[in-house]
Amino acid sequence: MSNKLTHEEQEALVISEDPEHPANLISELCREFYKLGWVTGTGGGISIRQGEHVYLAPSGVQKERIKPEHIFVLPFAQSSVPKPGSKRDFLRIPSKKGLTESQCTPLFWNAFTMREAGACIHTHSQHAVMLTLLHPRDAQSFKISHQEMIKGVRIGGVGKTLSFFNTLEIPIIDNTAVEEDLTESMAAAMEKYPDAPAILVRRHGVYVWGNTWEQAKTQSECLDYLFEIAVKMLLAKLPLVGDN
Amino acid sequence: MSNKLTHEEQEALVISEDPEHPANLISELCREFYKLGWVTGTGGGISIRQGEHVYLAPSGVQKERIKPEHIFVLPFAQSSVPKPGSKRDFLRIPSKKGLTESQCTPLFWNAFTMREAGACIHTHSQHAVMLTLLHPRDAQSFKISHQEMIKGVRIGGVGKTLSFFNTLEIPIIDNTAVEEDLTESMAAAMEKYPDAPAILVRRHGVYVWGNTWEQAKTQSECLDYLFEIAVKMLLAKLPLVGDN
Amino acid sequence: MSNKLTHEEQEALVISEDPEHPANLISELCREFYKLGWVTGTGGGISIRQGEHVYLAPSGVQKERIKPEHIFVLPFAQSSVPKPGSKRDFLRIPSKKGLTESQCTPLFWNAFTMREAGACIHTHSQHAVMLTLLHPRDAQSFKISHQEMIKGVRIGGVGKTLSFFNTLEIPIIDNTAVEEDLTESMAAAMEKYPDAPAILVRRHGVYVWGNTWEQAKTQSECLDYLFEIAVKMLLAKLPLVGDN
Amino acid sequence: MSNKLTHEEQEALVISEDPEHPANLISELCREFYKLGWVTGTGGGISIRQGEHVYLAPSGVQKERIKPEHIFVLPFAQSSVPKPGSKRDFLRIPSKKGLTESQCTPLFWNAFTMREAGACIHTHSQHAVMLTLLHPRDAQSFKISHQEMIKGVRIGGVGKTLSFFNTLEIPIIDNTAVEEDLTESMAAAMEKYPDAPAILVRRHGVYVWGNTWEQAKTQSECLDYLFEIAVKMLLAKLPLVGDN
Repeated sequence: MSNKLTHEEQEALVISEDPEHPANLISELCREFYKLGWVTGTGGGISIRQGEHVYLAPSGVQKERIKPEHIFVLPFAQSSVPKPGSKRDFLRIPSKKGLTESQCTPLFWNAFTMREAGACIHTHSQHAVMLTLLHPRDAQSFKISHQEMIKGVRIGGVGKTLSFFNTLEIPIIDNTAVEEDLTESMAAAMEKYPDAPAILVRRHGVYVWGNTWEQAKTQSECLDYLFEIAVKMLLAKLPLVGDN
Repeated sequence: MSNKLTHEEQEALVISEDPEHPANLISELCREFYKLGWVTGTGGGISIRQGEHVYLAPSGVQKERIKPEHIFVLPFAQSSVPKPGSKRDFLRIPSKKGLTESQCTPLFWNAFTMREAGACIHTHSQHAVMLTLLHPRDAQSFKISHQEMIKGVRIGGVGKTLSFFNTLEIPIIDNTAVEEDLTESMAAAMEKYPDAPAILVRRHGVYVWGNTWEQAKTQSECLDYLFEIAVKMLLAKLPLVGDN
Repeated sequence: MSNKLTHEEQEALVISEDPEHPANLISELCREFYKLGWVTGTGGGISIRQGEHVYLAPSGVQKERIKPEHIFVLPFAQSSVPKPGSKRDFLRIPSKKGLTESQCTPLFWNAFTMREAGACIHTHSQHAVMLTLLHPRDAQSFKISHQEMIKGVRIGGVGKTLSFFNTLEIPIIDNTAVEEDLTESMAAAMEKYPDAPAILVRRHGVYVWGNTWEQAKTQSECLDYLFEIAVKMLLAKLPLVGDN
Repeated sequence: MSNKLTHEEQEALVISEDPEHPANLISELCREFYKLGWVTGTGGGISIRQGEHVYLAPSGVQKERIKPEHIFVLPFAQSSVPKPGSKRDFLRIPSKKGLTESQCTPLFWNAFTMREAGACIHTHSQHAVMLTLLHPRDAQSFKISHQEMIKGVRIGGVGKTLSFFNTLEIPIIDNTAVEEDLTESMAAAMEKYPDAPAILVRRHGVYVWGNTWEQAKTQSECLDYLFEIAVKMLLAKLPLVGDN
């Protein structure tokens, strides 16, 4: 860690009266995501990248009770790739004892570096998990077509929006014991599926990103809607692809 | 566009301390609809017509975060029919960059012109979409009877309320790639089914209208209740019509 | 109508800073019930009897937007039985135009007179309606046993609480075209089932009462919980009575 | 009862401007738990132990309307074991008439004495109850593995967190007519299953504890999530243990 900012400069990175400041947004959005059942039991969260600054929530805390002063700030350009277990560069570490940066850090970085995303959301939504459970054990991806909500999703999460007649495809990767160990398989899936706007993690949840926090959030909503209706369709034995 | 109002006159069209002013109502109701799952991911919304003014939300924005200053105001009497893709007359365009009027505009106009409605609501409710998915591919309409909530629905959306013993019938039309392209098939269904209080769009959602915003909202609630219970009944293999 | 109070005296019946005043409670509780899905689309509501005064919401309005000044006040002792369609005595009629007293009035009176209830709640909960739909057409009642939540329900709605080992039984009556026309069949069911704490109305909802508004509300919650879990049990083919 | 504190000293035990004071927390958390459907109809609640003081809600009241002045305070060291029906020592009894301490008192004490827990939560969550109903009548426990949310649960509720590959096991005990009569069977199950973080009560609900109120709450959320998804998996005929 190479933190050379004064305490006042560090505080200024997260204390703002602007409700759209990333530290305020992360706190507010985590409260909203909690109500949606996306981040209960300390799981899930959101990271926002604004230019060269990345804002992160702490690991293992009640996400609906995060305050701006709990937020970590990291330089987007790290002195080394922020691999699992590696030391990272920080601009600000919260003074509250016992806080460590989110275990999703290298996964968020996948979205920032491979898709130039401005925000990445991770949820434990039951719709995402049930969807992976209802797929065969060796399924590589989830596909759905002919749903209006597909139009709210962008190619690769950051490109043009999909059409009603496009088939949305999202890779499913296996879960690992340690969250950070998903880094490589998530990156591999993002390479293999360049058009996918998200990565489903079997028996775990989903990672969704976008150019901005607004696009990451609205795409998370569209995808969660599609996961939910896909679960209902599978249980009702309706095909997910096609318009029969 | 033939906008001849001054900036002050335009602002006065949407800034009001009256909570029942259409610009305030649209903002408040969209927050409520978001909680109901009707307008997540930027989808859905409400338009209110008050005399010769029509109030519209922007397209493709987070509906639960709309503010009165984001609202478009159009004269109800347009110099030409506000067809898909056509230029429209505006009384006020929001100054925030990048906002365009709702893509549902010509669909809302169907309700205003063909039913003299005072408000029209569009939702992506999963109950509406699942209901269309559980109907055969060639089904022209959804029918249900013997439900108390039918009594909250009006003939044609704007006439007398239905009776418990009436059969409610709502046409189902196919979805299109571009929302505006639903204009003609929605109008055709409204002509063919003059008593229907709403139009279901397969794999997409529903349009509901009423004489006032209150009637449009309470009818949307009654219909969404009926869509939800109809889905449950179909999954439980209970007949929707009759009292067996 | 034999209203001899001055305007000021009438207003004093509903305007109070006490949050536990019946006019304030009805407004607050209807907002809460709306969130529970009990009174959407103008359906359902609550009436409170405090000594010789009965407080009623208006008919056919958005229940979550009721204000204390919209509340009707009636003397409990009416000059004639408040039968369906009969003229009633009022202490206060809201000045807002077009408001009429709740169509449930004679049904609430059943609870007040036959059970000496202090409050009666009517909901259109889907759990109640689905439960009636999952019963055979000629079923006279719903029965359930061996559920902890049964312990929150009182004999006849106003007596001692039931035990975990008691079987709760609630009659199911047929719906009618006009809500007031349920008056006699509801009274007949209350006579036939003196221990029942509520009356289910097929394809419509439920009426629940209690000694006080608190007991009416907590019993409505316990019963709605039991209706919901009974629906789940029936769909999973689990028996409702017994502990197998 | 051996209460020797003055009235002022008693009030000081529950009146505080600190939102993290146990009396404030119990009130706030019960409101939150109500929204989750965990404590409707007066059921369920939370007790917090802070050093030698135990804070308890009253029995049989609307949990979402508890105020700090309704909280009981007991010395953790009781002059005799707080068995069912036994007299207990109090530091503070609310002055509001008719309040008695929670019927869960001896069950909370099980968690405090056998696990040195700092908080214990009891819910009537339908997911917990349905899960017990979907198990065979003679099942002694519920088991699940390969779920990310398992990682939010601690061994014995107070030890190290579980791994994704661990199998979580929670004993199921039979319900009794009187809540306090669960004391012995709950204690026996806690002895037989020292690693279990909770006790399921058939046809009733669940008890969950943790080192602190935060850990009790986040573990309750993780477990409730697992109960919910386990119910969905059982209904979809998916195995709960293994990764097929």
